[in-house]
Amino acid sequence: MPSEPARPTEARLQEIVFPDHANHLGTLFGGQALAWMDKAAFIAASRYARRTVVTARSEQVDFRLPIRQGQLVEVVARIVEVGRSSMQVEVELIAEDLLGGERELCTRGRFTMIALDGRGRPVQAPPLPTDQGLSSRDPILDAAS
Amino acid sequence: MPSEPARPTEARLQEIVFPDHANHLGTLFGGQALAWMDKAAFIAASRYARRTVVTARSEQVDFRLPIRQGQLVEVVARIVEVGRSSMQVEVELIAEDLLGGERELCTRGRFTMIALDGRGRPVQAPPLPTDQGLSSRDPILDAAS
Amino acid sequence: MPSEPARPTEARLQEIVFPDHANHLGTLFGGQALAWMDKAAFIAASRYARRTVVTARSEQVDFRLPIRQGQLVEVVARIVEVGRSSMQVEVELIAEDLLGGERELCTRGRFTMIALDGRGRPVQAPPLPTDQGLSSRDPILDAAS
Amino acid sequence: MPSEPARPTEARLQEIVFPDHANHLGTLFGGQALAWMDKAAFIAASRYARRTVVTARSEQVDFRLPIRQGQLVEVVARIVEVGRSSMQVEVELIAEDLLGGERELCTRGRFTMIALDGRGRPVQAPPLPTDQGLSSRDPILDAAS
Amino acid sequence: MPSEPARPTEARLQEIVFPDHANHLGTLFGGQALAWMDKAAFIAASRYARRTVVTARSEQVDFRLPIRQGQLVEVVARIVEVGRSSMQVEVELIAEDLLGGERELCTRGRFTMIALDGRGRPVQAPPLPTDQGLSSRDPILDAAS
Amino acid sequence: MPSEPARPTEARLQEIVFPDHANHLGTLFGGQALAWMDKAAFIAASRYARRTVVTARSEQVDFRLPIRQGQLVEVVARIVEVGRSSMQVEVELIAEDLLGGERELCTRGRFTMIALDGRGRPVQAPPLPTDQGLSSRDPILDAAS
Repeated sequence: MPSEPARPTEARLQEIVFPDHANHLGTLFGGQALAWMDKAAFIAASRYARRTVVTARSEQVDFRLPIRQGQLVEVVARIVEVGRSSMQVEVELIAEDLLGGERELCTRGRFTMIALDGRGRPVQAPPLPTDQGLSSRDPILDAAS
Repeated sequence: MPSEPARPTEARLQEIVFPDHANHLGTLFGGQALAWMDKAAFIAASRYARRTVVTARSEQVDFRLPIRQGQLVEVVARIVEVGRSSMQVEVELIAEDLLGGERELCTRGRFTMIALDGRGRPVQAPPLPTDQGLSSRDPILDAAS
Repeated sequence: MPSEPARPTEARLQEIVFPDHANHLGTLFGGQALAWMDKAAFIAASRYARRTVVTARSEQVDFRLPIRQGQLVEVVARIVEVGRSSMQVEVELIAEDLLGGERELCTRGRFTMIALDGRGRPVQAPPLPTDQGLSSRDPILDAAS
Repeated sequence: MPSEPARPTEARLQEIVFPDHANHLGTLFGGQALAWMDKAAFIAASRYARRTVVTARSEQVDFRLPIRQGQLVEVVARIVEVGRSSMQVEVELIAEDLLGGERELCTRGRFTMIALDGRGRPVQAPPLPTDQGLSSRDPILDAAS
Repeated sequence: MPSEPARPTEARLQEIVFPDHANHLGTLFGGQALAWMDKAAFIAASRYARRTVVTARSEQVDFRLPIRQGQLVEVVARIVEVGRSSMQVEVELIAEDLLGGERELCTRGRFTMIALDGRGRPVQAPPLPTDQGLSSRDPILDAAS
Repeated sequence: MPSEPARPTEARLQEIVFPDHANHLGTLFGGQALAWMDKAAFIAASRYARRTVVTARSEQVDFRLPIRQGQLVEVVARIVEVGRSSMQVEVELIAEDLLGGERELCTRGRFTMIALDGRGRPVQAPPLPTDQGLSSRDPILDAAS
């Protein structure tokens, strides 16, 4: 008698920038940042849809600020819109200096994830609750939804 | 004019169990679980003390339930007690089946972290706020503090 | 008396999809694909500019076809346009079945890379030769440049 | 006609501390040390029981001395006690400076491993030989057994 | 109606030397170089034979010049001779300084790869085309074949 | 007043073959085997010479038997001959089935390592003790020395 599983709409990762993630100037490779963003989107969409999900698209991502070796990277992914089988996931990447505590939003991106059934065919993703309350928290996300 | 940095008392990691993390039966190695728990304790203590921190001790950890390949692992670390330079960090490891959504507390452990200055000598860690409010949330943590 | 270094405009990587790169259905994570594409763009831009380069932007990337575990992934990056310190790099990701030999263009993306001097400040990237001859090879690239 | 397999009671690993294993001060993360200790316990118990084994418990581990990047880490695991399906594995972690040759016992821990059959159920582990001779070699282990 | 698959006789990898690939002097471990050379031979032989292939032998490999952290490593593998089920693969490893552009042939080796059928038994590899034209490109390879 | 450091002539590694180390048939890549053999030779030569060492040559290595995913790999490296700055290291790679206990010598190779001073120039390696007693243990090594 399984009850309906919880469907959190947010995932939150914390990573540390190691030497192998950084170039000669000691700053994080963009590709590693994109991989972490996709991982957060994957977890958020998997938990929301309770399906295997795949990435269908990453939208334009601007890397505004360099992230340095040794910094903490927090990656926050939120489901902001749901189509038939697709989910729009807004992902923010925030760097934090572990010693000083300064936090900077380094980039924000959007990933489209598709829910699949056991044979790899797209299936309906559950609709977002209408009173999701995201709009009151972040006007930039509102404009985008 | 840097203001006092934020001192969050909690860190929260999400990881996925990959084939290289699992034995022949497809279940997570205990050592990988311990490494993730220490990583969460490291991040929690670093952000709380705003110092380089090192692990001084891990206390007894019981692995109650196997965690399977493909599951999500959520690791939650909380500062629960502060001595002179040492911080006690309670770490919970929760496995979640991505498809079914079932969550199980698989183990709980405690790590002692030490705050160090730039030359590697122990320094005072900041005292915990008195109204930390952890006690109302989790009686097991209360008993332990 | 160093002569002018060679400035190839193309980089070409070959990777194999391992179990740790794939989800439950055995297909490659989008984030791993993005990381490989950025790596190819990084190598192409570094060799072209002979400078440390960083990723400033990834443009929209559509993942048209799943890539399966065990397949070969070929990533081809080409400098297609040069601004002051920025270089536009077109990146194609081609999957090849090692046994059958079938090749499929799985996605194409564009990355903007910035050339930096030793102190991390943007510097002029060398202009593309006028007779680069890319236009005759790929009309899609032409339209984009 | 398989004869009875050898049942060594000891495993011995050698690892090198790489930059990605170390914090800002260049010293090994405790979690990496715990993962290596568990790996040695896993190998010792697997070879002794000739079964799939899982970690049931790690007991208190004190990290007495920091281990530096570039040092050799030797991990020695010994079966010291056998219950029904459980095996007690004593694990020592010794750091060695490759250039100077100094060796230091950095920590000692104990792991409880469980032998499982092909369906994941606990099975009897073979009894330790009575004349195992460990007692004459290390009084600390004697006291613990 | 599958047509005959393409059988390229060359594979070409590009890698970057990261901190975890290098010793205390900042130069690449020989074992990492050998692993990359084998990977290139594996890809070249797999694509040529369109079979699962395994390494049967590596011949003497001399490391003439150190490769430094941060350098680009280009690995070029070419099928130069085919026996019944075996393929001889010549592999060159070239280091390139990303900033200066200097390229040096650091080593050349030869790997023997065996083509296997689905059950792991050796099978005939396709004969090399007679007009392969390798001889006109590299007299050192000619002498070796 | 540092005394003369210990100069062990042997190193011994134990590794487990994970999914990412294996091809489609589930057998270990030759390049991974070579990397482990070089790592053992590096540790043996570093501890013997108490110098930074680099690999100058790997001699012919024949892979006689496939090694399967999940098997234990034991790598044993022994200093068998010392020239001026060079050390000959004999390396054996033994696979062991963890459940059945069967052990097979899968390959034997020889690596030449060079001792370097702090500036990367070759320095004299210490002479082997004359009564090293290796010859009585392994006639194949004797013939080779």
